Amino acid sequence: MASSTLSLSLSLSLSLSSNKQQQQQQPPTPLSSFLPKPKFLHPPFNPKLISFSTPKIICASSSSSSSSSSQVMDPFVSPTQPLAPTVVDVDLGDRSYPIYIGSGLLNQPHLLQRHVHGKKVLVVTNNTVAPLYLDKVVHSLTTGNQSVSVESVILPDGEQYKDMDTLMKVFDKAIESRLDRRCTFVALGGGVIGDMCGFAAAAFLRGVNFIQIPTTVMAQVDSSVGGKTGINHRLGKNLIGAFYQPQCVLVDTDTLNTLPDRELASGFAEVIKYGLIRDAEFFEWQEKNMQALMARDPSALAYAIKRSCENKAEVVSLDEKESGLRATLNLGHTFGHAIETGVGYGQWLHGEAVAAGTVMAVDMSYRLGWIDDSIVKRVRDILKQAKLPTSPPETVTVNMFRSVMAVDKKVADGLLRLILLKGPLGNCVFTGDYDRKALDDTLHAFCKS
Amino acid sequence: MASSTLSLSLSLSLSLSSNKQQQQQQPPTPLSSFLPKPKFLHPPFNPKLISFSTPKIICASSSSSSSSSSQVMDPFVSPTQPLAPTVVDVDLGDRSYPIYIGSGLLNQPHLLQRHVHGKKVLVVTNNTVAPLYLDKVVHSLTTGNQSVSVESVILPDGEQYKDMDTLMKVFDKAIESRLDRRCTFVALGGGVIGDMCGFAAAAFLRGVNFIQIPTTVMAQVDSSVGGKTGINHRLGKNLIGAFYQPQCVLVDTDTLNTLPDRELASGFAEVIKYGLIRDAEFFEWQEKNMQALMARDPSALAYAIKRSCENKAEVVSLDEKESGLRATLNLGHTFGHAIETGVGYGQWLHGEAVAAGTVMAVDMSYRLGWIDDSIVKRVRDILKQAKLPTSPPETVTVNMFRSVMAVDKKVADGLLRLILLKGPLGNCVFTGDYDRKALDDTLHAFCKS
Repeated sequence: MASSTLSLSLSLSLSLSSNKQQQQQQPPTPLSSFLPKPKFLHPPFNPKLISFSTPKIICASSSSSSSSSSQVMDPFVSPTQPLAPTVVDVDLGDRSYPIYIGSGLLNQPHLLQRHVHGKKVLVVTNNTVAPLYLDKVVHSLTTGNQSVSVESVILPDGEQYKDMDTLMKVFDKAIESRLDRRCTFVALGGGVIGDMCGFAAAAFLRGVNFIQIPTTVMAQVDSSVGGKTGINHRLGKNLIGAFYQPQCVLVDTDTLNTLPDRELASGFAEVIKYGLIRDAEFFEWQEKNMQALMARDPSALAYAIKRSCENKAEVVSLDEKESGLRATLNLGHTFGHAIETGVGYGQWLHGEAVAAGTVMAVDMSYRLGWIDDSIVKRVRDILKQAKLPTSPPETVTVNMFRSVMAVDKKVADGLLRLILLKGPLGNCVFTGDYDRKALDDTLHAFCKS
Repeated sequence: MASSTLSLSLSLSLSLSSNKQQQQQQPPTPLSSFLPKPKFLHPPFNPKLISFSTPKIICASSSSSSSSSSQVMDPFVSPTQPLAPTVVDVDLGDRSYPIYIGSGLLNQPHLLQRHVHGKKVLVVTNNTVAPLYLDKVVHSLTTGNQSVSVESVILPDGEQYKDMDTLMKVFDKAIESRLDRRCTFVALGGGVIGDMCGFAAAAFLRGVNFIQIPTTVMAQVDSSVGGKTGINHRLGKNLIGAFYQPQCVLVDTDTLNTLPDRELASGFAEVIKYGLIRDAEFFEWQEKNMQALMARDPSALAYAIKRSCENKAEVVSLDEKESGLRATLNLGHTFGHAIETGVGYGQWLHGEAVAAGTVMAVDMSYRLGWIDDSIVKRVRDILKQAKLPTSPPETVTVNMFRSVMAVDKKVADGLLRLILLKGPLGNCVFTGDYDRKALDDTLHAFCKS
């Protein structure tokens, strides 16, 4: 009973914090001159797209001074007064959950522990991330909470291991460790780990709780949020999986300090996507701040992650199971998945393939007469700033594209639906109603027959 | 639009039929003298268990003469006026679905076709059932409906193939056939096929529609209803899966004509279970009619299937995800799963293991002083009548039981909860609050250390 009360009071203090406190949270090198005024509670993005529901988006942050009573009650708040996280809520009724974003969050055990169910935890990670952060996560899970036991399973790193054989290692470990339905899985890593751990949690004993701790930009801005989980099949990406929501997503931006440059840039492909499909203002901010992002400026990164999560949370709240709107988050992904499958999983990073795929989708949109050429140029320019590819590898042919795109999840009764830009910057459509010649022309413009 | 209207009018005609019509549906050799008066709409079973909700249980049947207008509108109604099915509804809000029960239902294409989504169907079956019924099912799916294309995948028959390698063959076939999200999977076979096809449908493209056509007593009275799907792990049964509901369950009782005696008896273990846990009147009916069931008397079989489905539907409607009540359907299953895993999958049929497990659970209940010895005797007697085992095989030791039971899905925070009988016939509890000595004594009474 005591711990429930504690958790409630902490949640309230996070949600009710003021704008003044939000500003106190800025990292040491503020880039506030780059940031648009905070006005997300009345978002400017395509009002027509959100007219059929009113999502709850909370973009509040709190300082540790927000409530002295919650500090007294909380045994985990350290005397050094750690920065409180920004919180973005994903509003899905009784499956709602918070995304915590901030620096040093893995040093604040109460954030993780309030979402752990049962007495046993299985951390799923890979051989790149484990040496860097596994001990820290175990410490965060167990500090002041000796009744929890933590097991871990370390998978090989890479998209080429996002398969059933590797997934079985998670089940093996869970069963050998005698985990029961009241356990919690924790995904510690990038998108591959999050997708696999989430699907394992969905299927183990027909469903156990799980927590996402994404450690790459790609996972922090996109894949850890929204409950899409799954694995690849040799014939196509993410063809086996489940919609399964986590208990929370914990984004400790400090984990980006160890991220290779190529992985960093890969994540920006998804950040750029949000701007193109629904948030022109964010795209314009990116055009001005891409150099700061590439230089890992902490406040620029924190803002890009927060704003991306807000966009993702809003779309997922409106269309969890991808009946329509959510599909727009896949701009460039149908082309991109074909590149990843065609060239071999793990050869190109997901964001690299999405970047080239986005250029192809934008090219096709222009051929259809749906956008003007200034958007085509701006897309190429920002991707080049991010050092991302703007065309597919030469080895992927038109026929390889056609073959992989035919098994894409967005095919319905034989018709391939695509996300294409249409109208001013920040607007897109999800449609199967387009001239097939434009698709053919795009494929032939970018690759060999 | 036309087909939607048609489907609605047919559904209504099924639900609104009269008792007189129900009697017309009786098979040629009526056993009406054995049957209790129909009063299931006001069920006598443990009212305390259903006090927190009011499930909708419809046990209506119709004759083809119930509505001439629906006959005129329906191109599939044959001139020989086939018997209309009994319908039991599983009430789960927007995931509700009907169970159709009757003779010759595979000859009534409209029953299946009204539940097929999209233009592509994948029938999942095994090498025993395919030669008997696959052509018939394909015919039923395509008669008068040329726009649907049907693929099939034939798996090896047996519990030992309920594993990930075999499941992957379903995904391979689905992807190679370019099935999309608007396809329908059809499970044609016993419990193993239903569980595997259901899990494949849950995970393929993160979820597609599916239909259950159970062809064994075990599947018709239990496993096809309620949405539990999954596969085995070498260390335990059904440890990987999903709760995923079908669009409908179609029980054509004619398929039992080809069922081997041993499979027939195996299914009766689950029928007996319903009587013991919640339906004393049904158990008493079984005591009088087990010989008729073993002799495959059509009306006795039809009644046992219907009443079992009504019990299952009621429990599933009240507790879909097994928070509590639904676990009672697993009487004897924790012991039984240990037998199946310990002796090797496929050596004992599921119902044989459940039968022996039920005797062990009843023995333990008696040791705890929760039931009197007359119930112990009646359970042994009815299982013997059904030619089912009343003790585990000699090769399964006390330690094997303990090891497998430790990973049972009903373990919570390390405590094994069991379904045990308590009180008069027809009452049970799901509890971890029992004297461990009674469990030890039962294990030692039935097997070697």
